[in-house]
Amino acid sequence: MNILIQGGNILTMESEEIQVGDIGIVDDRIAFIGRDETFVPDKVISADDCIVMPGLVNAHTHSAMTLLRNYADDLLFWDWLEGTILPIEDKLTGEDVYLGAKLAIAEMIRSGITTFADMYMFMDDVARAVEETGIRANLSQGITGQGEEGIEKIEESLSFYHKWNGSNDGLIRVDFAPHAPYTCDDAYIGHIMDTIKGLDTRIHTHLSESRDEVKRSLELHGTTPIAHMRDLGLFEFPTYAAHCVHLTDEDIEILKQNNVSVINNPGSNFKIANGFAPVKKLLQAGVNVSVATDGAASNNNLNMFEEMNLAALANKAVEEDATTVPAYTALSMGTINGARALGLETQIGTLAVGKKADIIIIDLSKPHFYPRFNLISSLIYSAQAGDVKTVLCNGQVLMQDYELLTMNEKEVLTEADLAAARFKNR
Amino acid sequence: MNILIQGGNILTMESEEIQVGDIGIVDDRIAFIGRDETFVPDKVISADDCIVMPGLVNAHTHSAMTLLRNYADDLLFWDWLEGTILPIEDKLTGEDVYLGAKLAIAEMIRSGITTFADMYMFMDDVARAVEETGIRANLSQGITGQGEEGIEKIEESLSFYHKWNGSNDGLIRVDFAPHAPYTCDDAYIGHIMDTIKGLDTRIHTHLSESRDEVKRSLELHGTTPIAHMRDLGLFEFPTYAAHCVHLTDEDIEILKQNNVSVINNPGSNFKIANGFAPVKKLLQAGVNVSVATDGAASNNNLNMFEEMNLAALANKAVEEDATTVPAYTALSMGTINGARALGLETQIGTLAVGKKADIIIIDLSKPHFYPRFNLISSLIYSAQAGDVKTVLCNGQVLMQDYELLTMNEKEVLTEADLAAARFKNR
Repeated sequence: MNILIQGGNILTMESEEIQVGDIGIVDDRIAFIGRDETFVPDKVISADDCIVMPGLVNAHTHSAMTLLRNYADDLLFWDWLEGTILPIEDKLTGEDVYLGAKLAIAEMIRSGITTFADMYMFMDDVARAVEETGIRANLSQGITGQGEEGIEKIEESLSFYHKWNGSNDGLIRVDFAPHAPYTCDDAYIGHIMDTIKGLDTRIHTHLSESRDEVKRSLELHGTTPIAHMRDLGLFEFPTYAAHCVHLTDEDIEILKQNNVSVINNPGSNFKIANGFAPVKKLLQAGVNVSVATDGAASNNNLNMFEEMNLAALANKAVEEDATTVPAYTALSMGTINGARALGLETQIGTLAVGKKADIIIIDLSKPHFYPRFNLISSLIYSAQAGDVKTVLCNGQVLMQDYELLTMNEKEVLTEADLAAARFKNR
Repeated sequence: MNILIQGGNILTMESEEIQVGDIGIVDDRIAFIGRDETFVPDKVISADDCIVMPGLVNAHTHSAMTLLRNYADDLLFWDWLEGTILPIEDKLTGEDVYLGAKLAIAEMIRSGITTFADMYMFMDDVARAVEETGIRANLSQGITGQGEEGIEKIEESLSFYHKWNGSNDGLIRVDFAPHAPYTCDDAYIGHIMDTIKGLDTRIHTHLSESRDEVKRSLELHGTTPIAHMRDLGLFEFPTYAAHCVHLTDEDIEILKQNNVSVINNPGSNFKIANGFAPVKKLLQAGVNVSVATDGAASNNNLNMFEEMNLAALANKAVEEDATTVPAYTALSMGTINGARALGLETQIGTLAVGKKADIIIIDLSKPHFYPRFNLISSLIYSAQAGDVKTVLCNGQVLMQDYELLTMNEKEVLTEADLAAARFKNR
């Protein structure tokens, strides 16, 4: 199928330049950017008075935790996690996770996300939701274990890998997710590494999220979580690590030396009161830093415009330097840097001929986009997720003129509500 | 006119309780909350699957600075202010300010703001925009001077007061705005105080916004800006002070003792890199703390949902305590605390029988509002400004089902764009 996106302000994210023009799509790929009078489209999408840019990459979430949105807020961390979230998570079924993932995907498409990296449980059910809705996803089962205990989860992850990796025309990738250093002991990390040798996969994990985690690692191993994972050899596999809030200068050097991508989650880190990740230092060191939403239980939405805005604003305040994380950097964190974290930078993250057609169209016909001095600034400092009007992933239109095309949205919302009512009383 | 708002989830902000019911409005006031079978409405507005709550109070902005939105970003403070903003502000005319204020009002209504406090220039033109559009506003001319120099601006402010205070059925109030301690010397502050004695007005000012301001005050007066203003007697007049970022414990005590309301502007403070105001300490001391957008040149929007969200999130991170600024507190900062700052707490800021009908209706039919565990949390942690569906101010419907009723929005947007093109080349 040939699709023409006509007459938008195109921000390719290959550079800060914005050009007015068209984008031609043939099947799943971008055929041209600019103008091609010979192109015969089957479908024309007007981008008049719009920005056209790459789909956003949400490189760390737990999608089905949408079901726990606004369930437990304004609590101390352990009251939140052990007192409320873990007990209710124990009640979730595969069907709940499927419904929660569908809800998450509806919300993500509406906010311009075309790729997400998910770490959770009942991942077959998440994969099913991803397949049905046409979004791109790196999926991983979050696993924890000590020595031989929990070893069957590694086998499950491996089966999940063989079943789904590369499926749905390559939209689904499968990664491996040792949950965190404090939930996986050294032997267990060793088993995971033995299992994935030679596989076409990545490591998705949480590192140095809280002060307490770092303190416990220092007590147990004499090293930080990041130095400890390096010592175990985990970073010999391509790795993307969520949070990385409490870092030493040596940690930053280790992340850089080992090409570990950092997934910054400001909304979650602030809300659960873990603090401010050293984003400026990480960027200066040349670490690939992306930004993501984390799960909706600690955020409480899947809104990349908010996360990019927080990354730009909060780091300026922390550093007391308004040049920190300028708008284009924040946009890069939400697009190409996320793609790089997931190993997809040759396919997505920018708009270029031959790349996959993961494209979003943002409606500028609102007061907060007037006047038009700087469209890049407007995306970070003025925009809302609800300004995303049309979304394509892999050349398929997932939302057009604010209408979701690959799911019955009303049904998804109702079913998520019913699921919440059920598991709450289980 | 009798209006019935039917069947919403009503959050009065008199307490955290949410009740499902109706609101009856007679002319400009709330006649009942709950149910009244005898009420005969001229107009019925459905609030099915919506939250109904008080209009938001944006207690510190410079509305016409919407014209400078996204004009100068990611710059060091003095490059931003002296290098770009002040030179371009010099080119603005009264007509520009009128068009900028209209643009701001369009944006504010769309984001649920029914009252704003404006400090700027060409205030007759702002008042004209306010009068035409039916929003509520405390207006003040920002004035600066040294001794006798600038004294005519005080006369202008006085004329403006006599012309507009209490006008448009009381929707317009006029305050006096000595811009800041560093732009008004002691004698000038004295002239202002002499002028306003006995008037029904308030002081709107900027205090302790930057480290540099505090440092200069200590050098010049041996005291902080806040202690210095107290010493001059300014706080004998009801005062609301924007920013208050860099405070000593003694400053906080002075603010409390003198009933000075603090208007917190997190978006602006972060973006211009002034840092984090001590919101937790201020609240603990019993200071009335509101939240506001500041001008769109340093934000870059007029989005109170973002500001309330920032106040809740960032203060948790700063304090490393997730119980800091819980959702209901953030909502209070955006409603009743703002009303209190402006001296309007008996008229607006909560929904109660006899109070003015400043009411907003928020559309919950979106993925980020599912499931429905806690609607108060959802307003702070999940909502977007664009979820505001219907807005009433003083009993008049300003927006219904996302359509602005008291202005030609398309024309306002176009004219703001044309104005920007004109003054840029002046």
